[in-house]
Amino acid sequence: MALSTVTRNHLMVPHQPITNRFNMVQAQQHAVLDHPKSKTPNRATRLAESLSHVLHLNNVPSSRANHKNFNLDLLRDHEQNHSTPTMSPRENISEKWREIQGCSDWENILDPLHPWLRREIVKYGEFAQATYDAFDYDSFSEYCGSCRYNRNKLFEKLGLTRNGYVVTRYIYAMSHIELPRWLERSHVADTWSKDSNWIGFVAVSDDEETRRIGRRDIVVAWRGTVAPCEWYEDFQRKLDPIGHGDAKVEHGFLSIYSSKSETTRYNRSSASDQVMKEVIKLVKFYKEKGEEVSLTITGHSLGGALALLNAYEAALTIPNLPISVISFGAPRVGNIAFKDELHQMGVKTLRFVVKQDWVPKMPGLLFNESLKMFDELTGLEWVYTHVGAELKLDVHSSPYLKSGMNLPGFHSLETYLHLIDGYLSTETPFRSEARRDVALVNKSCDMLVDELRIPHCWYQLANKGMVCNTHGRWVKPKRDPDDIPSHTSEVCNHDFGFEMPTYRMSLVSP
Amino acid sequence: MALSTVTRNHLMVPHQPITNRFNMVQAQQHAVLDHPKSKTPNRATRLAESLSHVLHLNNVPSSRANHKNFNLDLLRDHEQNHSTPTMSPRENISEKWREIQGCSDWENILDPLHPWLRREIVKYGEFAQATYDAFDYDSFSEYCGSCRYNRNKLFEKLGLTRNGYVVTRYIYAMSHIELPRWLERSHVADTWSKDSNWIGFVAVSDDEETRRIGRRDIVVAWRGTVAPCEWYEDFQRKLDPIGHGDAKVEHGFLSIYSSKSETTRYNRSSASDQVMKEVIKLVKFYKEKGEEVSLTITGHSLGGALALLNAYEAALTIPNLPISVISFGAPRVGNIAFKDELHQMGVKTLRFVVKQDWVPKMPGLLFNESLKMFDELTGLEWVYTHVGAELKLDVHSSPYLKSGMNLPGFHSLETYLHLIDGYLSTETPFRSEARRDVALVNKSCDMLVDELRIPHCWYQLANKGMVCNTHGRWVKPKRDPDDIPSHTSEVCNHDFGFEMPTYRMSLVSP
Repeated sequence: MALSTVTRNHLMVPHQPITNRFNMVQAQQHAVLDHPKSKTPNRATRLAESLSHVLHLNNVPSSRANHKNFNLDLLRDHEQNHSTPTMSPRENISEKWREIQGCSDWENILDPLHPWLRREIVKYGEFAQATYDAFDYDSFSEYCGSCRYNRNKLFEKLGLTRNGYVVTRYIYAMSHIELPRWLERSHVADTWSKDSNWIGFVAVSDDEETRRIGRRDIVVAWRGTVAPCEWYEDFQRKLDPIGHGDAKVEHGFLSIYSSKSETTRYNRSSASDQVMKEVIKLVKFYKEKGEEVSLTITGHSLGGALALLNAYEAALTIPNLPISVISFGAPRVGNIAFKDELHQMGVKTLRFVVKQDWVPKMPGLLFNESLKMFDELTGLEWVYTHVGAELKLDVHSSPYLKSGMNLPGFHSLETYLHLIDGYLSTETPFRSEARRDVALVNKSCDMLVDELRIPHCWYQLANKGMVCNTHGRWVKPKRDPDDIPSHTSEVCNHDFGFEMPTYRMSLVSP
Repeated sequence: MALSTVTRNHLMVPHQPITNRFNMVQAQQHAVLDHPKSKTPNRATRLAESLSHVLHLNNVPSSRANHKNFNLDLLRDHEQNHSTPTMSPRENISEKWREIQGCSDWENILDPLHPWLRREIVKYGEFAQATYDAFDYDSFSEYCGSCRYNRNKLFEKLGLTRNGYVVTRYIYAMSHIELPRWLERSHVADTWSKDSNWIGFVAVSDDEETRRIGRRDIVVAWRGTVAPCEWYEDFQRKLDPIGHGDAKVEHGFLSIYSSKSETTRYNRSSASDQVMKEVIKLVKFYKEKGEEVSLTITGHSLGGALALLNAYEAALTIPNLPISVISFGAPRVGNIAFKDELHQMGVKTLRFVVKQDWVPKMPGLLFNESLKMFDELTGLEWVYTHVGAELKLDVHSSPYLKSGMNLPGFHSLETYLHLIDGYLSTETPFRSEARRDVALVNKSCDMLVDELRIPHCWYQLANKGMVCNTHGRWVKPKRDPDDIPSHTSEVCNHDFGFEMPTYRMSLVSP
C-alpha cells in the first residue's frame, strides 16, 4: 500500500460549499485540467489509512523506502544540470486560475499533481521561504528580528523578482504571552524594537503576472519559527474563541496574530490589523479598477497557522473574495467549528505535509509518546483538527534525500519545496524533470545525501556580516538606512481614503 | 598573590648553555632592553606556586578575577578605535635581535614584557594563525585538508604581507597510526590526497624586514589541530626514542612529524624531510651570501609540539644556527633527556600558556580528574616535561573576555594573541594601548563579552563557498587551478645543488 497519498481530513463535511467565492466555470476548466488517469481513492480506505498512521506514529517502514537504491545516474544528471533553468516555463493559466486556486477543492489535480498547480505552489512556497531567508537572526544585531532589506529590495535580493510580484507592506507581530523562541530577541539594549518581529509581508502581482494568472493576486506570506519543537513544548493546549460562533483556536497562535500594545513602535496595531488594512485597501483599489482579485495566504510551520487565522478573518470581513491558503508543514490550529466555519465561508485550504514531519501532528501528539497515552491523545486529536485538502509528501520518495531521523530536516520548508517539485503522483517515482535547485534543500539543514557534496546549513553571510575596514579592523557595518525598519513608513498610514497608494508606481512600471 | 606570573620550568637545569648559538653581545643589549623595574621571583616560591596550581587543577579562583568590573569605558574606546592601527609601529630591532630571540632566555624582558618582544611574538603568532585561517576544513571539498591558496598568495589573502615575509614552501604530513581528528579527511573519493594534510609552511624575511630585524629570519609555522580534546583521548602515552641519546618523545607527535609512504603523492618524504631540506637550502643560500641567519619555529597546540621536534632536528643537523621556538598552548612533548638535549644544543624556547587552557597540561593531566588519581598523574607529569621559558597568561586579565568555562575558547590561538597583546606584566592590568583587533578573538570561538556585540565563530565563507550561477543554481565553483595542491611543485625538487632557488626572485624584489 502506498503511504504517500492524497487524503482530505477525515472529519471534513461533504463538499457543499455554502459560499462559492470563486464563481468559476468548472466544466470548462475540468476539460483542460483533468488528468486522464486521475483516481478517487475510496473514502473508507483513506480513513483507515489515516488512523493507521496515527496508531503507528507514522513510523511504519514505507514500502517505497525499499526503492531507495541510490541513483547515481540521477546525481550525474544533477551535476550536468548546473546550467539548466530552475523552473518550469511560465504558462498562461488565466483561463484556469480558479481551479488551480482550489475552487473544486483540488479534486483531480493533486494525484497526479497538475504541472500548472505545482508551479504555482512552488511560487507561493518561495514567498514563504523569503520570510526566513531575509530575516535577521543575529542576536547581537540591533535589528535582530527585523527584515534585513526594505520591502522594495526584498525580492530583488532573494532572486524572486521573476515571480512577478511587488511587496506593498511588511507585517510585524508581538505577543502578550511568553512564548520562548517564537519570537527572536536582540541581546542588545538599543534595539529597533524590544517587542516586535517582522512576521511577513503583503505583495501583489504586477501587470504582466496578472495577465498570465488571470487575476490580480494579493499574497500574504507569514513567517514561521525556527524551533517548532521548542514552541511545541510551550503549547498551552488552551483554546480561545474566534469569530461569533463556536470556533476556537490555539491561544499562542492567536496571541501572535492579534496582540498589540500602545507602548510599542511596530505593534500599536496588531499583525491582524496591519494585514487586514492592507488587504482591504488593495482589494478595494483593484476592484474599483474593475479587476478580478484573489487573495492567497501562505506560510510554513507557525506561518501556516497564522495563514489560517488570517484567512478566517479575511473571509469574515471581505465578501466574495476568492481566498486560498497554501500551507507547508503547518500544525493544527483550531477546533471542528473553526474548520466548519472556514469551509462554510468558502476558504480553500491546501496543506502540504511531509509524513515524517512531526509539526503537522501538533497539537495532538507528543514526541516520545508511548501508545498507552493514546487515549488521552485521541482526545486532543479530536479537539484540534486540520482543515482542507492535504497532499502527503514522503522523504523516501527523493533519491537526493537522506532518510535517517532528522526532525529539522523533515520540517524544513526547502525540503517541502524539493519534494513538491519532484512529486508526480502517489504511484510514480520522483519526477526526473524536477527543476528546482536541489542544493537549496541544505540551506539550513543536513538532508542531502553526501554524494551530492552540498555542505549542510550553507546559507550564511560571509564572516557573519563582519567586514575588514581600511585599518584592518573587523567591524559590523551600519545597516543601509533604507533597510532600517521604520515604523512611520509602515504603520502611520491611518488614512483610509484610497488616494493613490504609495506602491502604485511600482506596480505600473515594476 | 598574582597568579599570572612568569615561571620557567622547575625542572630546568641552571642556565649554562653548552652551545651558544646566538653569538650575541649581551652587555650592550641589556643596556637597552632591561626594564628598570624588572624582578626575579624567588625560585622556591615559583616551584611552590607551580605545584599548587597542579594540585588545584588550576581552578583556584584568581584574585584578579575580582578586578573584573566590566570596564565600559574600555568598550567605548574599543568602538571609537575602529579607525586606529592594529599593530604597534615597526621599530628597528636589528641591534637587539639576539636577545629578543632568547639568547639570554628572555631574562628581564618577559616581566614586564618588552614591547619589541611583544611585537615579534604577535608576528610569529600570526604565522601560526595563518595555518588555521587558510586551511580547507570542508569535508565535502575534494581539497579538504589542503591550503585554500597557493603559497604565493597566502599572506596576501590573509592580510599578512605587512609582516615582510615570503613563503618558500608548504609542508605536508601524514601518519602511520590512527589518530582520529588529528588530520582532516575528505568525505569524497576523488580527493587531492587520501593521506596527507597541509601542516605548515616555511617562509623567509624579505630584504626590508631583514634590515629591520638584523638578520635573515627563516620561519617555520606548524598547524595545530581543531580538537585537542579528542586527540588527547587518543594519546597512547607511549614514548618513542629520538636522536642518539636517551631523549624520547610522544609517539603520536613523532608519527605526524616523520611518517612517509611511497604510495602517497605528498608524503613520499615526511614532514621532517620536507622542512629540513627547505631550511638547509635556505640557510646555505643566505650564509653563502654572507648574511646572518636565524631560524624561528612557531606553532599552536599540536603545532607547538611539532615545532619542538623540528627544533630538535634542526639543532642536531645545522651547527651554529640560532634556533628559537615560540609556541602557544602547546602540550608536553618529551622526557627530561629530550628537554636537556634541547637545552644543551642551545635551542631557545618560549612557551605561552593560558592558565585556564588544559592542553599545555597534557600529557599528564586528564579532564575530569579527581584528586585520588593524582599519584598516578604525577608519574606522567615527571615523564613528560615542558621545555624552556614560559609566560603565563590569564583569561581574567582581559576586560574583553568572558571568564566562564570555555575550553575551546581558552585554547584558541586568537585568545592567546589577544592576551599577549594586552600583557604588560604580572603586576599591571590589561594594557590600555593594546592594538590588536579584539574582534579577532571570536573568529572561531565565543570568548568576547556580549557587550562588544561581536558574533561568535564569525570567521566563515559566504554560503560556505557556494555561489549562485547565472542559471540561478547554487554550485561550488572549481578551485582556481593555481590553488590546487601540486605535489610536483612542492615535492619533486630532489636536486640539492643550490642553483638559483625558485623563490629567489620574490625575495630580491618582493
